[in-house]
Parts: sequence; structure tokens; C-alpha cells
Amino acid sequence: VISRLRWMERVLGPALGEAVRKAGGIPLRPMTAQALQMGDECHNRNVAATSLFIREITPHLLAGGASKKKVSEIVRFISGNNHFFLNLSMAACKAATDTTLGFPGSTLVSAMARNGTEIGIRVAGLGERWFTAPAGNPVGLFFSGFGQEDANPDLGDSTVSEVAGIGGFAMAGAPAIVQFIGGKPADALRYTLEMGEICVASHPLYRMPALDFAGTPVGIDVLKVVASRITPVINTGIAHRQPGIGQVGAGILRAPVEIFDAALDAFLVSTARPPA
Amino acid sequence: VISRLRWMERVLGPALGEAVRKAGGIPLRPMTAQALQMGDECHNRNVAATSLFIREITPHLLAGGASKKKVSEIVRFISGNNHFFLNLSMAACKAATDTTLGFPGSTLVSAMARNGTEIGIRVAGLGERWFTAPAGNPVGLFFSGFGQEDANPDLGDSTVSEVAGIGGFAMAGAPAIVQFIGGKPADALRYTLEMGEICVASHPLYRMPALDFAGTPVGIDVLKVVASRITPVINTGIAHRQPGIGQVGAGILRAPVEIFDAALDAFLVSTARPPA
Repeated sequence: VISRLRWMERVLGPALGEAVRKAGGIPLRPMTAQALQMGDECHNRNVAATSLFIREITPHLLAGGASKKKVSEIVRFISGNNHFFLNLSMAACKAATDTTLGFPGSTLVSAMARNGTEIGIRVAGLGERWFTAPAGNPVGLFFSGFGQEDANPDLGDSTVSEVAGIGGFAMAGAPAIVQFIGGKPADALRYTLEMGEICVASHPLYRMPALDFAGTPVGIDVLKVVASRITPVINTGIAHRQPGIGQVGAGILRAPVEIFDAALDAFLVSTARPPA
Repeated sequence: VISRLRWMERVLGPALGEAVRKAGGIPLRPMTAQALQMGDECHNRNVAATSLFIREITPHLLAGGASKKKVSEIVRFISGNNHFFLNLSMAACKAATDTTLGFPGSTLVSAMARNGTEIGIRVAGLGERWFTAPAGNPVGLFFSGFGQEDANPDLGDSTVSEVAGIGGFAMAGAPAIVQFIGGKPADALRYTLEMGEICVASHPLYRMPALDFAGTPVGIDVLKVVASRITPVINTGIAHRQPGIGQVGAGILRAPVEIFDAALDAFLVSTARPPA
């Protein structure tokens, strides 16, 4: 891990940085939109988005100072991990969803994250306060030699994907994802339709061919979750509960309804008028 | 056109040839199988397959003699045409389907092609004879400024895709194709299911998530076409009827039933016993 991080610091980072600057920035939103038409949901399946990124960045890498050998190393590294795009996508989702934070009176979910112990949400109209509950245990498929007893409770920042209308919310665009996380292609359609019940909008750019090019559900509304008891579906990787082993599977879980109940309670308190 | 062909001869061809040899060959069948899980049907939609090819070939291009500048030119050229993979795929399909030609007693279609005037098929058990009829006119979507009156009758060798079980036969894996050729995503599913009626097998590697990972229908049987009157669906580009203008749209058409009737007649004649 450490030698790879050093290589990222010394080779990958500087070359990618130079390439992105030479390109004048690489717009990630159209790339995500295109990948959703190519079977990715851009959380647990990123093969299309990673491929599109390689196509886009390679000529800019070649225009920079890195040698052919270094560019080859970089392309092989990115190509060697079909989840590479998730690193970029999470940052893009964070940049988008953070714009909702602090919007007065809004019950939109601005952030959702897990740390292996707790899961929490932040709500647009409630500032930077987190509403938390114990992290759940994903159900899914395990890599060979591992099973449910090895799984750590859910962790990571990648649920920013679901907050931004991709990942579990865009599964209808990614029927092949079920080979990685379990279930049938029809489940993928069902999850997306269900998430439409708790969202305020359809994404104008992120469209799913299998649903006649409907936009992905986006903008989780605390009010809708509390009223329907439908909670966000999260596509997630499963980490081993012991450090140093890493990912052992992938699956699905739901955010617990308590954190939405708690957020609504806080909202009612914050907006309650003093007694007359 | 001529200057581009010269560039292909002088730059693209030698560099790609060197890269493919350095790679020890690039297997196209797994790439096609993967692309079918990424929304391509690999005839009129090749964005995923072209992206996967760029990922695969770039490190080998970089290991060859071409300069960074030339590699960049090549990657930009391939990346600039989402149909690039079709050039490779057609050759792979031809290599696969030609193996059936000359198989005694077989009513499998070994080849199907159009030349702008006629469409023809060859049948496994009937050697190299072509059974032909006038080429049809595709119905589809036209590029801005063009319409049905500009369309040349259907032409090209790319129907080898359908013979090999991709293209129109794999449309269920490519719902977004309807944005390019017309129709609704449900039509894409319907075409594939219908093609199952005239084929002898499901492809063991080419699987479609939207149909619970069923294999694409493959192996058009003259007997099944004649009996059902269902004829192969072809995804096609539409060329302008005047030379020098090029592609003006994309669409769908059906092979005419007469060429299958004629092939069966020839079969019956060729296998008829002399009168006792």
C-alpha cells in the first residue's frame, strides 16, 4: 500500500494533474451521463466511466512531460482498476451535493456517509450537524474464500454517489451490476423505481435507457423517507473486519430510517415557534 | 478521404500492427462479450467496444516505435470514431462464420451482405453460391438536413455481425441504440426475442443483462426463416445515394424472405434423389 501511495504521489499525481490542466479540465458530468447509458451505475460498476476517462486523458498525458514508459505505467494502472473513476466521481458528487448545504428550510439530504461504526446524514436546512445510527451490514456476494462473518459494518464516503442520484439510485441503468452485488436484473429496475418515491426530482442529464431514458431519481427528501418508511438503497463494497485485508465482497444495504426520523425531529424543533 | 487513407497506410497501420504483434494478439471475442454488457450491440453502437480497445491497445502502442506525438494522433483518431471497433469486429465475425461454410447438409446461414443493389446470403450446406434479391431501404433516423429520399438502398458487409449473433440480434443488450436508429427500448428487446425464433442456438459468451444474461440468438436457420416467415433484422448505417457524401443516417431493415425461400429450393434440388 505504502509503495503504491508513493508511486501515486511521485508519478500518477503530477502527470494526471498536468494532463488535466493541459485539457483545461475534464468535465465529469457528461462522462457520468454517458457511462449510465453503458451499464454503469457509477458506484459499484465503473467499467464504462473508467474506459471513457482513459480515452479522454491519454492524449493529454501524451502531450505532457511524462515519458512513454511513464504514460504506459499510468494507463496500465488506471486500466487495471475498473473502479478508478469512482475516485473522481465521488469528488464530483461531493462538489454538487455540498451546494445544497445550508439552504434554509430545505429537507433535502445533503450528505450521507459511513465510517464502519456509524452511518450519518446531513440535511440542507440543518447545517453541518450529522444524524447518526449504527452502520448496517451489507448483504451481497463475497470474493472466493470470504463470507458474511468476515464483513465489517458498512463504511466509506462513497454514499455521496446515492445522494447525487447515481449508485443504488441508478441501478436500472446497470442491470449487469447484479452479477457483482447479487440479485436479478429486475431487482435493479425495482430499486430505481422505489428510490423515485423518496426523491424530489429526476436528474436532467443522468438518463437510463431501460426506463425509456427517464432521469435517475435525485434529491432525497427527509419528509418523503419519514412518510413512506422507504430508505435509500446503497450499493457498497464490503471490507474485511480486520485491517490489512481490504475488500472481500460487494452488496447492498439500506440506510436506517431512524436517522431520517431524527433529522425531521430536529427540523421541527428548529422551526417551532415559541409558545404564544 | 485519400489523405486519411494515406495516413492509415503510413502511420496507423504500421503502429497498430506492431502493437498487436507486441501484445501477442488482442482477443476480440471477450471484448465483444464485455461490450454487450455495456450497451453496445456491436454493429451500430460500438462506443463501449471502441473504449475497451483503446484501453487494451494503448500500452502496446506506447511500447512500440511510434513517438508520443504519433501515439497521441492514433489514440485521438480511434477515439474520434465510436464505430472504430466495427472494423475489427466485422473481421472477427467473418472469421467465425466462414467456418460453417461447406458443412454438409447444414441449412445455417454462413454469410449475408449487401452491395447497394442486392442483398445476398450464402448457406453452409450450399457452398459459395449467393442467393440474392434487391437490396431494401432502411427506415431510421437521418442526420440533420437529410431524409429518406437521400437514402441509397442498403449496402455493406457489416451484416456479418447479425450472422454472428450480434448487431440486430443483440439489440436487447443495447437499449440506447434506439436513440440512433429510432424506436423505443422495448423494441430492442422485442427484436432479440424475435430473432430467437429463427436461430438454432444462444451464444455461450455473448450475454445480455436485460434478458437475465441469456445468450444472443445465433445461427440463422433457413428452415426456421422459411417456416416462420420471420426474417433477420439488420441494424445498418444509411448511405447517401450520391457518391462522396457518405453516411446520412442509421436505421433498421429486414432481409427479404425470398432469398431464404430460394436457398431452401436449391437445397431440396441438391439433395433430391433421382426418380426410382
